[in-house]
Amino acid sequence: MSNNSINPERLLGRLTELGNIGRDGGGQLVRLAATDSEKLGRDKFVSWIEQAGLELAVDRIGNIFGIWKPIGVADEAPLMLGSHIDTVINAGIYDGCYGVLSGLEVIETLLEAGFEPSRPIVVAAFTNEEGVRYAPDMMGSLVYAGGLDVEIALATVGTDGSALGSELQRIGYDGKHEPGFMRPHAYIELHIEQGPVLEREGVQIGAVENLQGISWQRVTIEGDANHAGTTPISMRRDAGYVAARVIIFLRDRAKNSNTPTVATVGCMEFQPNAINVIPSRAAFTVDLRDPDESRLRQEEAALASFLEELEQQEGVSIKVERLARFEPVQFDRNIVEMIEGAAKSGGHSCRRMTSGAGHDAQMIARIAPAAMIFVPSIGGISHNPRENTPDADLIAGANMLLDVVRQLTAKAR
Amino acid sequence: MSNNSINPERLLGRLTELGNIGRDGGGQLVRLAATDSEKLGRDKFVSWIEQAGLELAVDRIGNIFGIWKPIGVADEAPLMLGSHIDTVINAGIYDGCYGVLSGLEVIETLLEAGFEPSRPIVVAAFTNEEGVRYAPDMMGSLVYAGGLDVEIALATVGTDGSALGSELQRIGYDGKHEPGFMRPHAYIELHIEQGPVLEREGVQIGAVENLQGISWQRVTIEGDANHAGTTPISMRRDAGYVAARVIIFLRDRAKNSNTPTVATVGCMEFQPNAINVIPSRAAFTVDLRDPDESRLRQEEAALASFLEELEQQEGVSIKVERLARFEPVQFDRNIVEMIEGAAKSGGHSCRRMTSGAGHDAQMIARIAPAAMIFVPSIGGISHNPRENTPDADLIAGANMLLDVVRQLTAKAR
Repeated sequence: MSNNSINPERLLGRLTELGNIGRDGGGQLVRLAATDSEKLGRDKFVSWIEQAGLELAVDRIGNIFGIWKPIGVADEAPLMLGSHIDTVINAGIYDGCYGVLSGLEVIETLLEAGFEPSRPIVVAAFTNEEGVRYAPDMMGSLVYAGGLDVEIALATVGTDGSALGSELQRIGYDGKHEPGFMRPHAYIELHIEQGPVLEREGVQIGAVENLQGISWQRVTIEGDANHAGTTPISMRRDAGYVAARVIIFLRDRAKNSNTPTVATVGCMEFQPNAINVIPSRAAFTVDLRDPDESRLRQEEAALASFLEELEQQEGVSIKVERLARFEPVQFDRNIVEMIEGAAKSGGHSCRRMTSGAGHDAQMIARIAPAAMIFVPSIGGISHNPRENTPDADLIAGANMLLDVVRQLTAKAR
Repeated sequence: MSNNSINPERLLGRLTELGNIGRDGGGQLVRLAATDSEKLGRDKFVSWIEQAGLELAVDRIGNIFGIWKPIGVADEAPLMLGSHIDTVINAGIYDGCYGVLSGLEVIETLLEAGFEPSRPIVVAAFTNEEGVRYAPDMMGSLVYAGGLDVEIALATVGTDGSALGSELQRIGYDGKHEPGFMRPHAYIELHIEQGPVLEREGVQIGAVENLQGISWQRVTIEGDANHAGTTPISMRRDAGYVAARVIIFLRDRAKNSNTPTVATVGCMEFQPNAINVIPSRAAFTVDLRDPDESRLRQEEAALASFLEELEQQEGVSIKVERLARFEPVQFDRNIVEMIEGAAKSGGHSCRRMTSGAGHDAQMIARIAPAAMIFVPSIGGISHNPRENTPDADLIAGANMLLDVVRQLTAKAR
């Protein structure tokens, strides 16, 4: 029996096909969680699950599962592979989709090869991993792992005022299964690095041993709307100016430290947002990440005390709301070593690394041994239409996944 | 005949009545130019013009005129009084409306007193003075003075995508008269200071002798959308960070100079505006003002060269668009002295001053001798619901206007 390679044409073809679903008028890829355009992506994935002859299951938070349940081992805890198919605004085609479609590809390859696994193998697409429309991100896997009550998650109100629950119902993905209904034997997520490390070092496979902690906050600054022409600088309580001070503060701290800490202000809104009125309100988000929990806490504390300073100095009032907070995650050593071994025997260069991005794997790691495999991102670019990975690396990564899956589901001889 | 005082109850009552027109759901006063809510304000003003028995005229740019044209002097160039009744978002009730309603009040007072002016007296409400919905601001008076072609002005597309011309038609204020159809003998605008000077010095009347130059620009910074978690600070092209640098630069320059220069960033927009994506674009407005033209040019040049620096340093591309530019204006010395004299004989403290805000008077000054009268703004607050002026000062200001109007329209004996 030959099951040493997945079918490259099928995998790459599906990546392109799914990547063309959810393009807006300007040709930008926008498949935000539980929107009409994401429904089209979900429908396509479901059609491939059914083509492959897998059992389809959808849970209450809209996570989609394609289950290979061979007779005789149906009651064993399944090996789960997966990621997500929702995207950011103006996204690339690999983030998430690569892991989902590779999981499906691996299962089909094993099926076609007549492989007899020692346990069910499942491919999962988790809801709202990006968190662009609904916070927190990685919501589907968080709920699946029991970290967030499904009712609370379904009641989440999005940036557009919609409730996730009613949107899932509207697009027909409010499933019947309780999140967590299958407790995985193990979970493996294949993903593009979304960073520059592998490419810069010329390494083809990343064996991801841990993952950065993430802190998301919303900061709202209340100042005083006033006439832009007649109010002396000394008398201003300018919320927009104070917001700018915070952006500079975060950048300077991250830049001047020798740590991997990163800080990003991605969302910003001024009120009244009029050209001749001093902003009375500035609301913005802060995304802080660090693989070290104590350092992440330090950064949060430094921001908090700087905001207090600014309240004093500028006579504004500042409100901080926590949107999401995840501690750094350690992945399963055995699986990480298995990935390294697979790379070696496949003749691929490999290094252990930290994930800079949040992934569903960090949630599933709460209920099962988990790890991730990374492949290079050209220029480290992601969350951008120029997101790209050489085909050879995409194929190599999927074959590493195939190899590890075979080992984790091999029958004792 | 007694015409030494306007009717305080009528003036204050109308200010309150007009101030209650155009409140939104939250009770905020929002009468942006040519909107449905501004139409209601226009209709109310027109009803008062008709009550007073004045001739109503509306020109093609929507400027409203109430004309007192006594027999015998109908062909003389009219003395024009006025201001505007459009507002900013969440505005106070005095900005503009005080000048318009005081002009009407002065005419009615003189009518009731049987006064026989040597020329027609007109009260004007000019369209889109605030410029919040359509740029440039002071558009109605600019067009009236011949500084902007009426067709171009009517074609202006607003922040909401609407065209001013079709909006004026929709609300029924697309008048038939050509802008500039009456060339004023002189123009006087009574206004709240919108700044802290008069209150701080305990002076009741400001004789405004000149007006700041105004420079409005839109700056658009193009960087690179990228993943917030995996992109090292050194590899970022963060448009939001660059925008913050500009805000800080403008503030620091204005603060550290000993000049009256003021700089404001009132509008700000990030794209894609997602919490976990580095902003690829930041677009914002810059409002620069200075009573000295050479200094205003210096500030514009300093900003331009700083933006060039940032392009180099941060690897972003920056586009600058000029939205509006007005040189400082000198008002008519004779009228300014007349205002001082009126204050003196009325027993009111008075000082000459510079207007920090733009006003319709600066446009009409192009075609007629013009000046302004200021009354104190409590706390210097304007463009804000807390905008306020003591009743005594409002009445005193209107009576100064009455006195000056009497002098400018007195018949030779």
